[in-house]
Amino acid sequence: MRITAQLLRAVDRFWTEQDLPDGVGVLVALSGGADSVALLRLLEQLAVLRSLTLQAAHLDHAIRSESAGDVEFVRQLCSEARIPLYVERADVPLLARQSGRGLEETGRVERREFLCRVAEETGCRFIALGHHRGDQAETFLMRLVRGTGLTGLAAMRPCSGPFLRPLLDVSRRQIEAVLEEMQQSFLQDASNEDVNFTRNRVRHRLLPELQGLNPRIEERLAALCRRIADEEDFWQEQVTEALAGLVVKQGAQELRLRRPGLLGLHAALRYRVLRGAVQMVRGDLRGMDGGHIEALDRMLRGAAPQAEIHLPALWAARRYDTLWLRQRSPQRPAPFDLVVNGPGEIRLPDGRQMRFAYRDRPQGESRLAVEFPTEVIGFPLQVRSFCPGDRFRPQGAIGSRKLKKYFMEARIEQEQRQGLPLLVGDRILWLAGVARCHEWSCQEWDGPVLRVTLEAD
Amino acid sequence: MRITAQLLRAVDRFWTEQDLPDGVGVLVALSGGADSVALLRLLEQLAVLRSLTLQAAHLDHAIRSESAGDVEFVRQLCSEARIPLYVERADVPLLARQSGRGLEETGRVERREFLCRVAEETGCRFIALGHHRGDQAETFLMRLVRGTGLTGLAAMRPCSGPFLRPLLDVSRRQIEAVLEEMQQSFLQDASNEDVNFTRNRVRHRLLPELQGLNPRIEERLAALCRRIADEEDFWQEQVTEALAGLVVKQGAQELRLRRPGLLGLHAALRYRVLRGAVQMVRGDLRGMDGGHIEALDRMLRGAAPQAEIHLPALWAARRYDTLWLRQRSPQRPAPFDLVVNGPGEIRLPDGRQMRFAYRDRPQGESRLAVEFPTEVIGFPLQVRSFCPGDRFRPQGAIGSRKLKKYFMEARIEQEQRQGLPLLVGDRILWLAGVARCHEWSCQEWDGPVLRVTLEAD
Repeated sequence: MRITAQLLRAVDRFWTEQDLPDGVGVLVALSGGADSVALLRLLEQLAVLRSLTLQAAHLDHAIRSESAGDVEFVRQLCSEARIPLYVERADVPLLARQSGRGLEETGRVERREFLCRVAEETGCRFIALGHHRGDQAETFLMRLVRGTGLTGLAAMRPCSGPFLRPLLDVSRRQIEAVLEEMQQSFLQDASNEDVNFTRNRVRHRLLPELQGLNPRIEERLAALCRRIADEEDFWQEQVTEALAGLVVKQGAQELRLRRPGLLGLHAALRYRVLRGAVQMVRGDLRGMDGGHIEALDRMLRGAAPQAEIHLPALWAARRYDTLWLRQRSPQRPAPFDLVVNGPGEIRLPDGRQMRFAYRDRPQGESRLAVEFPTEVIGFPLQVRSFCPGDRFRPQGAIGSRKLKKYFMEARIEQEQRQGLPLLVGDRILWLAGVARCHEWSCQEWDGPVLRVTLEAD
Repeated sequence: MRITAQLLRAVDRFWTEQDLPDGVGVLVALSGGADSVALLRLLEQLAVLRSLTLQAAHLDHAIRSESAGDVEFVRQLCSEARIPLYVERADVPLLARQSGRGLEETGRVERREFLCRVAEETGCRFIALGHHRGDQAETFLMRLVRGTGLTGLAAMRPCSGPFLRPLLDVSRRQIEAVLEEMQQSFLQDASNEDVNFTRNRVRHRLLPELQGLNPRIEERLAALCRRIADEEDFWQEQVTEALAGLVVKQGAQELRLRRPGLLGLHAALRYRVLRGAVQMVRGDLRGMDGGHIEALDRMLRGAAPQAEIHLPALWAARRYDTLWLRQRSPQRPAPFDLVVNGPGEIRLPDGRQMRFAYRDRPQGESRLAVEFPTEVIGFPLQVRSFCPGDRFRPQGAIGSRKLKKYFMEARIEQEQRQGLPLLVGDRILWLAGVARCHEWSCQEWDGPVLRVTLEAD
């Protein structure tokens, strides 16, 4: 029992290294193939050492016609080992057609869902999967081919949530050897992974080609995956810490970050932080690649104080000193133009009220209130949104300038400009809530005034 | 001139992005193959935009019989373009045989040495190399195959020291297109890289296989290399900073680091720091792989307060709260055993003197001096190194214990133990420089004493 003892020690070390508790329930995902059968048989022995309670679960994928025989085999195996077995049938081909996803992905999703459900029902804290080192190398290569970033190249983790992969560092050859030593039969071809074109090419052509160049390639790739996974964990910490210090505003599916802080980060960390921010806003990174994040970074570093780009399921904008990420671009308010014929209140499109009232003498101005001598300003007045060509002379300025230029100087963001109510007489009198015009100040005036006030937002 | 203009813009952007100065001298490494010819012709145009002074250098490798014709071709090319050309001949096959290195490596070393020399002689600050995106993908794959760590997967850098690779993000197809558009001829097969078995297999079998799975694989791999290179730069900063805070002692080919500080680092950073420390001590990382660094880490984290491992060209030891790295293990002092027959001086193997003298009354003890009443201690005395089985009762202790156990309690490192002089009468009287025995204290004694002093080290 040399190889059996060796692998049992490996699985036992796995338990120690991953800091897993003794005395828990473990559900074994049992396809009936070599990997899962070897896993079951090894865990059966580990269960004695570590007081584990084993259960097994088998999902009949209905992809191949022999699947009924597969069920019979795993039933027999578990009954001999006195391990409770949960079997369920899922018509994966039908589900795949219904959902429009591939056979392999559908199978994976169904299997996962089934395993989690059974684990919960049976009180199993962990679910053991039979992935071995060859699977890990394949996963790495498939992701390399697909052009995933570094994060994806960490491939499968030994532990992730309830899922354990105790054989992830064991070769297929060792698995076959242990089964032979135990004289344990298994199902040939019990997986549904052979439906994937890329995986097949990777397994049958790419990996053998690589093995011709380096016989220990699987081991090397597995070691590389471990290293990348370790560093991913480190990056995760760095990104979380950096992001926490950069958030200006965080809403549902929306995030604003401080630009100067972002620029102060090392380029590599900034890339990771941007990626993390995009993930927070979108919920995932599907369809995003490195080029998208780089485009975001270019916009961030660029000269334009306001700029925006549309990325897959993401709208990103630079607004002066902030970077603004949203799932969708913000709605621009529609242009408006209201006529005010006398004192009283009007309601603006954004819901706020603007009030016009005569007063015997000035009450004092503020951000939300202006006053003009009644002898120079009279009704009708206009309250409207910005028009191209508008000019404005802010209080204290030498002359008037294009309002657009004033917006830039005052760092009024694109989204605010269109909704900003302009009080207009023979000229723009007030950018309501922002600035009054230079003329007709009431600072030295003690007579009757028209007082215009805006409700706070 | 569509593709020419496009690539010229790319090279110009390269200059900007890499922050390279205008008006400098650039030496073009010119093999005469498509890549280097395209590079020369593009830099010729960039030289106008950026006031560069171009020179070219060609090393005749003497590997293929047509190399004389190659020289004629590059001469003609440079003479037409009025670019000074430096040609030298190196008998690479002969040099390879003499040095015992491979043809490719010998060629690379010779070429580098030649280019650096010519650049210096001609006052060129930079050396431009023709590597393109396909070369980058090849380099990545060769290193992946060889099982290098993440650092190596950054592959070739766009800028490294004086070397520039302006075409690193340009495909071979684009290079061929630009030459065709310019109606510029070039040498087929002008490189000596086809002598490398692995490179050939990677180029002619692995890359095409990958391209079959993803036609944009070269682009993807090049992007991955860029990302890894960025992160390597970040790691370099992190490692330098972390190491600076961990050094206890730094000597020639030797380093001592604080263990608690190392353990406080994230596992991924600790791995990188250990790797950096090994590189500092050895000067390089040749022959070291991830497994070696992991072994070092295991020893560091392990329970044994003193442990050591031998790695390629490195001796590493844990000594209590420190990690000690050296190129070679420290020499252990030979055992010694000296007899002292009367007052006077003896010389210890480590060169220090030990002096024995009578005094009328106690002078006071210290780390380097002990005193015993003459009425209980007399000559001959013995000064010797530690023997297995030695027992010792330190001052104030209840009883005697194994000296080995005392060494552990007092955290005396392995290397000190053997050289430590023991003063022995009917028992061990003094661990010279460390502790005296419990008996025959002179604290309450006012008569004549034997005073033994050890020279400071």
